[in-house]
Amino acid sequence: MNPAAQPPDGAAPPMRSDAERNRGRIIAAARAVFGRDGLNASMASVAREAGVGIATMFRHFPAKEELVAAVFADRMDAYADAVAVALADPDPWHGFTGYIEAACAMQAADYGFADVLTMTFPTAKALEERRNEAYEGMVRLIDRAKATGRLRADFDPSDLVLMHMANAGVVNATGDAAPDAWRRVVALLIQSFEAPARGTLPASPEHAALYRAMLRASPAGITAPEPDKSS
Amino acid sequence: MNPAAQPPDGAAPPMRSDAERNRGRIIAAARAVFGRDGLNASMASVAREAGVGIATMFRHFPAKEELVAAVFADRMDAYADAVAVALADPDPWHGFTGYIEAACAMQAADYGFADVLTMTFPTAKALEERRNEAYEGMVRLIDRAKATGRLRADFDPSDLVLMHMANAGVVNATGDAAPDAWRRVVALLIQSFEAPARGTLPASPEHAALYRAMLRASPAGITAPEPDKSS
Repeated sequence: MNPAAQPPDGAAPPMRSDAERNRGRIIAAARAVFGRDGLNASMASVAREAGVGIATMFRHFPAKEELVAAVFADRMDAYADAVAVALADPDPWHGFTGYIEAACAMQAADYGFADVLTMTFPTAKALEERRNEAYEGMVRLIDRAKATGRLRADFDPSDLVLMHMANAGVVNATGDAAPDAWRRVVALLIQSFEAPARGTLPASPEHAALYRAMLRASPAGITAPEPDKSS
Repeated sequence: MNPAAQPPDGAAPPMRSDAERNRGRIIAAARAVFGRDGLNASMASVAREAGVGIATMFRHFPAKEELVAAVFADRMDAYADAVAVALADPDPWHGFTGYIEAACAMQAADYGFADVLTMTFPTAKALEERRNEAYEGMVRLIDRAKATGRLRADFDPSDLVLMHMANAGVVNATGDAAPDAWRRVVALLIQSFEAPARGTLPASPEHAALYRAMLRASPAGITAPEPDKSS
């Protein structure tokens, strides 16, 4: 008996190998296309890059959110890991600023991921679980940095979301032409986060408003066409 | 003799009134479409909104740059005026921060203009002249604010460009859902600009690199189709 052909009890049956190959090609193509053009790239352009038909595309990924989740699962893992690394830093302020630099560098390295960090995908459960995990870690990171007196007391977790939106703006506008420009903006922002605060700030957006903004920014869901028989 | 039908010597002949009307409709439609969807909106969607054919559209505006220049001429005027107002402020630091808030508010009020401020349109001479005029004013504004000791000495004019890129990112990502969120990011950045500097900064991008970035971000030029006879 071939163990690869026979899953252990309770496991999903193995995907047909041509389907599996197509799925891998679609994910690899989407990674390249989203990384180059951002998340507004169309499902059709991903299918073209992968060399598969649009029906095959939609059979594997009935909605763009599912494709986004598959493509960025490992990036979101790395992002959540960066929070865990920062929490393990014995110097809370150093951990906090190191996390910011690492997370913004991930945005600069991948325009698609730059967008993912400023959006939310309610139906992509696994991706959102990792994001929530990262968010809870960030709240602890912020509390630790405030406790040392190095982080301004009025810093709000939503400021990290706004910072990622700002960084995405710089990264998208400068691109390959000035690939390190974002570092200067992030350094300025980190200096502004440092205590003592140099002045008051306008109120943070309410949590619900920011969530609506992140929903709004995400690419419109695409309804799957009727599947055909091609693979 | 009807003076409206006969231009004074040396003036361009008056536009036929239906053509004039179409031009006005196209500009109004483009203002609405770019303001809502940003500069990536297509020429076709502007023509649809204006209720004119695509050939009429291209006869008036053979390239997207020309349409952008016509739509944003008054916004760019207001932007250049904001620099002049800031230069007239007896308190150079107050003038400098007031200019930043005014210019970022212009971005927040118009997504299309948010993009215009981070791009360059070499063929749109009048628009670029106003931008250059504003830029020269900004350099004087920065020098004045540095002379008072309130603005950090390592502040570079390109930091204002990077700030507009960051602000465009926040404005585009938050939109109507959190319409004032950009104010908090801009307030943080202004605090980071204040002397004494809290640390060194990564080098500014070179002028040529930032210019390439602004060129790169601008919408791809569109070639005009053969004109037809409809107006």
